[in-house]
Amino acid sequence: MAATLQLQCISPLYHSSSSISSLFPIPNLSLLFLSSFFLVLLALPSTIAFSEGTHLLHSEILKDEAVARLIELGKVSDAEEFLARTFQSPASVRAGNLIRLWMEDAGLQTWVDQMGNVHGRYEGLNPSEKALLIGSHLDTVIDAGMFDGALGIITALSALKVLNVRGMLGKLKRPVEVIAFSDEEGVRFQSTFLGSAAIAGVLPVSTLHVHDKSGVTVQGALRENSIEITEENLLQLKYDPESVWGYVEVHIEQGPVLETVGLPLGLVKGIAGQTRLRVTVKGSQGHAGTVPMAMRQDPMAAAAELIVLLESLCKQPEDYLSYDGQCTASTVQSLAGSLVCTVGEISTWPSASNVIPGQVTFTVDIRAMDDLGREAIIYELSNRMYRICDKRSVLCLIERKHDANAVACDPGLSSQLKSATYAALKRISGEDLDDVPILMSGAGHDAMAMSRLTKVAMLFVRCRGGVSHSPAEHVSDDDVWAAGTAVLAFLETLT
Amino acid sequence: MAATLQLQCISPLYHSSSSISSLFPIPNLSLLFLSSFFLVLLALPSTIAFSEGTHLLHSEILKDEAVARLIELGKVSDAEEFLARTFQSPASVRAGNLIRLWMEDAGLQTWVDQMGNVHGRYEGLNPSEKALLIGSHLDTVIDAGMFDGALGIITALSALKVLNVRGMLGKLKRPVEVIAFSDEEGVRFQSTFLGSAAIAGVLPVSTLHVHDKSGVTVQGALRENSIEITEENLLQLKYDPESVWGYVEVHIEQGPVLETVGLPLGLVKGIAGQTRLRVTVKGSQGHAGTVPMAMRQDPMAAAAELIVLLESLCKQPEDYLSYDGQCTASTVQSLAGSLVCTVGEISTWPSASNVIPGQVTFTVDIRAMDDLGREAIIYELSNRMYRICDKRSVLCLIERKHDANAVACDPGLSSQLKSATYAALKRISGEDLDDVPILMSGAGHDAMAMSRLTKVAMLFVRCRGGVSHSPAEHVSDDDVWAAGTAVLAFLETLT
Repeated sequence: MAATLQLQCISPLYHSSSSISSLFPIPNLSLLFLSSFFLVLLALPSTIAFSEGTHLLHSEILKDEAVARLIELGKVSDAEEFLARTFQSPASVRAGNLIRLWMEDAGLQTWVDQMGNVHGRYEGLNPSEKALLIGSHLDTVIDAGMFDGALGIITALSALKVLNVRGMLGKLKRPVEVIAFSDEEGVRFQSTFLGSAAIAGVLPVSTLHVHDKSGVTVQGALRENSIEITEENLLQLKYDPESVWGYVEVHIEQGPVLETVGLPLGLVKGIAGQTRLRVTVKGSQGHAGTVPMAMRQDPMAAAAELIVLLESLCKQPEDYLSYDGQCTASTVQSLAGSLVCTVGEISTWPSASNVIPGQVTFTVDIRAMDDLGREAIIYELSNRMYRICDKRSVLCLIERKHDANAVACDPGLSSQLKSATYAALKRISGEDLDDVPILMSGAGHDAMAMSRLTKVAMLFVRCRGGVSHSPAEHVSDDDVWAAGTAVLAFLETLT
Repeated sequence: MAATLQLQCISPLYHSSSSISSLFPIPNLSLLFLSSFFLVLLALPSTIAFSEGTHLLHSEILKDEAVARLIELGKVSDAEEFLARTFQSPASVRAGNLIRLWMEDAGLQTWVDQMGNVHGRYEGLNPSEKALLIGSHLDTVIDAGMFDGALGIITALSALKVLNVRGMLGKLKRPVEVIAFSDEEGVRFQSTFLGSAAIAGVLPVSTLHVHDKSGVTVQGALRENSIEITEENLLQLKYDPESVWGYVEVHIEQGPVLETVGLPLGLVKGIAGQTRLRVTVKGSQGHAGTVPMAMRQDPMAAAAELIVLLESLCKQPEDYLSYDGQCTASTVQSLAGSLVCTVGEISTWPSASNVIPGQVTFTVDIRAMDDLGREAIIYELSNRMYRICDKRSVLCLIERKHDANAVACDPGLSSQLKSATYAALKRISGEDLDDVPILMSGAGHDAMAMSRLTKVAMLFVRCRGGVSHSPAEHVSDDDVWAAGTAVLAFLETLT
């Protein structure tokens, strides 16, 4: 695999003149993003004060009820002691049913499609107009927080419910559809965006036959919930691009930027590209007591060396990449600021403390803002991994399980969402802001898949300590309210 | 834990003048064993030719039937695709029933005790005489070979069956009892020698309440098979040392020595000491895409560094241990020749490819001939591990799960077993041998526990490529025959 990689590591994606940063009159903004997407760029007040007091703010729906729903949905889990909802698991189905009730409560017409996505739609004044889609995912990681995914679905439904309560739903000039995607995390099938990629028409039909650890396929998992899907059905799930106006997603930031600058909301400029590898190391299985150290071909010791290498390379990519024709200085600079690498899963076979393993398998998750830089890292990593394995006389197999190029949000749609966010924050706080921060996303989102269908924009919501994918994940009640109000303000521009 | 270790790393066990090496008139033999127990010491013919042709050799029982039984027992597994029998699993119970039938076929009286050990006994001419115990284990590792454990049980039963067929069983001057121990590998409860330690009276009663990964206790596992055991019952399982003459165990070598010298059988001088650790590394769980490398407290990267350290330390202990008061030169020399360290199991939590783990746990298996040297290694390893974890701001917990000091086999009993082995090899091959090789065992065996009750001796049987704990484990039919013949020759000395 590695040998076929392109090494012309030039022209980073985010230097494009069409990027959203041109919307904001701040010099050298894009370069600042490139050098470190974890830092924010604008001089902003350190906190925003929320002023309540008028029912026009609808805090009973946008805050109280939304928070109560987040808590309720956060309890819908396949495990007793922690939150876990994977694709088509019993808890996922229960979560979908609950969301569907809330969609109906907002006045939407609902259905579940053949990939398990839950839809709620209002046709508005002109059903033949291009529709605005708003969405996020209803699945979670294992031992998850309750905001990742759920926040985007619930804030959209709260905003629509406010329109409904006000009798303004019927005045929408174009259809609005909320979609709760069935899979974004990819925990069960190691393949992310099952739901949104199907809608965007970019999910390979072969995905239906991918199986989970217990041998159940995607198709089989759906069938267990009485959903029959064929390859032909899957192709039909794709939305006609001509029928869609754009896609908006609200999501917990999952990073520390908004908390650092003391603001509840920020616009997303783009989403980092991602590659997921599976590395298998095969050695010589044997008795832990009888094979001398010098005679071992131990895949666990080899895997440990590979993981140490990975960490070192991703911490200091500039020490590993050469500039002579391989990468430009700006690419290396971008990588140094944005590259993150993670080994989240590892297993040995046969997994007994007194047996030298015959095989070790682990995952590698690599993300960066610069697609060519990411390719250069994978090339360098693979080459060095193979060399270590050769030296140790073990066999390495590096499989590329998932790739997603970086995605730039649409400048026009983002501009509209930014104006709405600005108005919402002003409405709640009563204060004028200098501006709304803009940040990059290191996490993948359904907007990545949806960008293959239509223009996309994203709004990030502040989270405590930048922590996500953890039960410690937290968004304050006021920030939930701010996010719902921003969606409401955006929807109001469509009436 | 580490701080309490004793560091007076002097006087290695195997320098004791009482060791079995004094039996053999070869200069500097013990030093040779110490420097490398993987090498053999005697000039021996490169192969032994087996001469068949007389029914007195009983190859139909000692070879053909024994091999057929090994194959039959090797198919008794809890998994379809590989061999696995853990303590009190359904396959273990079926294996015990099969062994019990073969015990009865050899003319023995049988029973199963409250730790699931299967016994077969013949009282002989003098039931009040001290008994010879012969045993090995019926459990296996996961994805095991079919000789580890089973070989010792089946060769003993074959030899006794020959005595029975010849009408000589009644002439035994002392009781002979074969015991198929219920647990030696410790796979299910991470606690080895459940069976033999109970017989030897060294199994803590608290072990009954240790639980497996699914929460079932040792007591509960026995109860599932209708065996009720209390702490009081467990204490009563201990044999009276006054009623036992000695313990003999035949076992696959699980190492490359006998194959290297081209001989089927070898005497065991002693068994390496062993420590099993569980290392838990706790870090900060987070989203794989949003936490910058520099801000991570990643327990997986830390664990990888710890495992790389472990391998380096165990490959070159002399580079890590100081001589100034910590270890004598001979201890370091012994470690350099015999120390082996293995990480066989590792797991992450929550184990998702897109989540920085919050916790990583792995096992460490450390074995060495020199007990004080092993302690010095654990002290050094622990100190260095804690330093790495401190540097990375992750929390390390090093738990000591199992310890077994090195065991020396009994010189007198070993001498008798050696004579019988010599006679058996001569009987089969028709050739005179210079001597029978003597080796150390890097693997732990039930003889370790039984040495707490009585004198022990062990016979090793050649295996292909030194491979064990693997489906590739293999003992030739002729070597099975040789082992059975050696036990037979030993039993004949008791008639």
